[in-house]
Amino acid sequence: MNSDGASDGEVGYDVPASLGMPETDVQTPCLVIDLDAFERNLMKMAGLCAGMGVALRAHGKMHKSADIARRQMEIGGAVGICCQKVSEAEAFARGGIRDILVTNQVRSPRMIDRLARLAGDVKIAVCVDDPENIGELSEAAARHGTELTVLVEIDCGAGRCGVEPGAPVVPLAKAIHEAPGLIFGGIQAYNGAAQHVRDFAERKARIEAAIAWARETRDAILAAGLPCPTVTGAGTGSYMFEGSSGVYTELQCGSYAFMDADYQKVLDESGAPVSEFENAFFLLTSIMSTAISGQAVCDAGLKVQSVDSGLPVVFGRGDVEYINCSDEHGVIRDPGDVLKANDKLKLVPGHCDPTCNIHDWYVGVRGGKVECLWPVTARGKAY
Amino acid sequence: MNSDGASDGEVGYDVPASLGMPETDVQTPCLVIDLDAFERNLMKMAGLCAGMGVALRAHGKMHKSADIARRQMEIGGAVGICCQKVSEAEAFARGGIRDILVTNQVRSPRMIDRLARLAGDVKIAVCVDDPENIGELSEAAARHGTELTVLVEIDCGAGRCGVEPGAPVVPLAKAIHEAPGLIFGGIQAYNGAAQHVRDFAERKARIEAAIAWARETRDAILAAGLPCPTVTGAGTGSYMFEGSSGVYTELQCGSYAFMDADYQKVLDESGAPVSEFENAFFLLTSIMSTAISGQAVCDAGLKVQSVDSGLPVVFGRGDVEYINCSDEHGVIRDPGDVLKANDKLKLVPGHCDPTCNIHDWYVGVRGGKVECLWPVTARGKAY
Repeated sequence: MNSDGASDGEVGYDVPASLGMPETDVQTPCLVIDLDAFERNLMKMAGLCAGMGVALRAHGKMHKSADIARRQMEIGGAVGICCQKVSEAEAFARGGIRDILVTNQVRSPRMIDRLARLAGDVKIAVCVDDPENIGELSEAAARHGTELTVLVEIDCGAGRCGVEPGAPVVPLAKAIHEAPGLIFGGIQAYNGAAQHVRDFAERKARIEAAIAWARETRDAILAAGLPCPTVTGAGTGSYMFEGSSGVYTELQCGSYAFMDADYQKVLDESGAPVSEFENAFFLLTSIMSTAISGQAVCDAGLKVQSVDSGLPVVFGRGDVEYINCSDEHGVIRDPGDVLKANDKLKLVPGHCDPTCNIHDWYVGVRGGKVECLWPVTARGKAY
Repeated sequence: MNSDGASDGEVGYDVPASLGMPETDVQTPCLVIDLDAFERNLMKMAGLCAGMGVALRAHGKMHKSADIARRQMEIGGAVGICCQKVSEAEAFARGGIRDILVTNQVRSPRMIDRLARLAGDVKIAVCVDDPENIGELSEAAARHGTELTVLVEIDCGAGRCGVEPGAPVVPLAKAIHEAPGLIFGGIQAYNGAAQHVRDFAERKARIEAAIAWARETRDAILAAGLPCPTVTGAGTGSYMFEGSSGVYTELQCGSYAFMDADYQKVLDESGAPVSEFENAFFLLTSIMSTAISGQAVCDAGLKVQSVDSGLPVVFGRGDVEYINCSDEHGVIRDPGDVLKANDKLKLVPGHCDPTCNIHDWYVGVRGGKVECLWPVTARGKAY
């Protein structure tokens, strides 16, 4: 900013910061990454996976950023990334990621075609839970002269997608193995809801059930004379169970890189909130109204965050609390009337994934200065 | 699509449809507008406002589309539009809208500067609830040689922004009136939460309180010898009360153009859901998994809708129900197992505003064919 308050011309219509700018000058509301904490999270998870002897395939659906995915592979030990949609995979491929698992079913003929086409450029794997889908994928791979690695997804307790575990998987595995253009890659066993179960013992019990189903399924496949190179799944709330199971070969953690308020309500064995990963991800907001005593209103509402998993937490402030929101406003309880117009707060969003998906930019900050601006590469890529 | 299922090359990486395509070929998940119903909603509201003798300033924060805003002015009787953020106003101005009220406080020096600059191009009004902000706006208008119309926002029951109604508004009105570059425009009295109160009598009572505060404030301003040309506020849930109050001169309805599942839980005087506006806005989704009997999984989860006001309703289907969602999936209860892969459902989202803000495109459909593709012009414009 110039001293007269006029625009400095560096922050564009759609860009919240310029490189080198003090963090305090960043235009709100916007997403900020604490790069030191982010890098520590990446290296921490790399060490944990190495210690357990499992691969990390970091989940790109969380951040949707090719820049972040590259760092997860370069310094975070990831063998590749995963995502949920074909259009996301395309965006990651254009951003330089060469090994992508679509952890989902792809049923639209147009998107099956695009997935098979993409496999001519980068290594692509995808999940199925329906025999018909195997033929569709094989035809598309043949059409483009490409190869798709295909995993069978099992329902291991989430009650969403996935076939019944155990013997019912064998005919699908065989069909994939025999289908032209397809390589049978193994199984996906992911229970997303179980990641967020607060109580350690209950969370562990749900994941132990998932592990047992995955083991039964893997053994049935091996007994049928097929290989089962990959058993993939797990997330930030449960990776220690799958990682040390001897069954899973690959973990799909995503939120560990950023953390969010919901994951920080998950408890460890001692009953304390999990603490191995730090808050590296914030929704920076400014106060815009203090007209009513005892509260302040900030510029971050439903248009810049998802509240499906609860309201955000104000980071590092015990004196104020985010208590309500509407489309463009957040109401902050401020009993001491300490907040003034343009004061900034760092919010820890309730749920990082759908919050990231609303924004166009991440502002990376280190030592109080803006170090990088990363586009949310696959923002809105829902096809 | 070609008969072999390959891409027809018309639907781009980021575009869900092509003009003239059958609605059944549109790529999901995406937003669809029923153009006939949309136009009927616009004309209905135009007639209601004309009948009550109040102006309609349609709220563009809901749809964020310059194409829709233009139609609201061309066939929907709107005198201009309103929006919540400066970056939204800029996007609407670039899209040809020449009369914009920012129904919000603007406190960031950079955004105050951009607002005053924009007033050199189109007619701009803005709200204040803090005397300091008046000086900031005046300085910015002087810097750019422009004029800003400024309204005082009162808190009429929402407990968010806005000063205490009545006499406390007069000094602010005077300060605006006397400030170089500013024109005192009147008052804004908007109670957003009251729009969604289900019970007719309770909703009416809350809005009657708002009307009384607005009247008291207007009368205090007039008694001080100042004009009060505009009293603006109201929304889709309450417009009939403000519109017939004799106090409000301008209504800010937004959702009426599309409607959403939450607004359709609001009841009229007879206890039936309000019915004067039709569902014109849908989240089109496809079935992607039927592996578990009794349910189907669709491709519309938290990344394509906001569930802050509840889950979506499946339009026109009594036999299936959207019961749960995660980031990229929606679980549909399907007791008859009638849904098959790639079957399409039209969802009525719980809350239209934050749902529109996630998407890049509206697909306009008439008679089963895609008639138009409208960008969500101000998508993500939160500054």
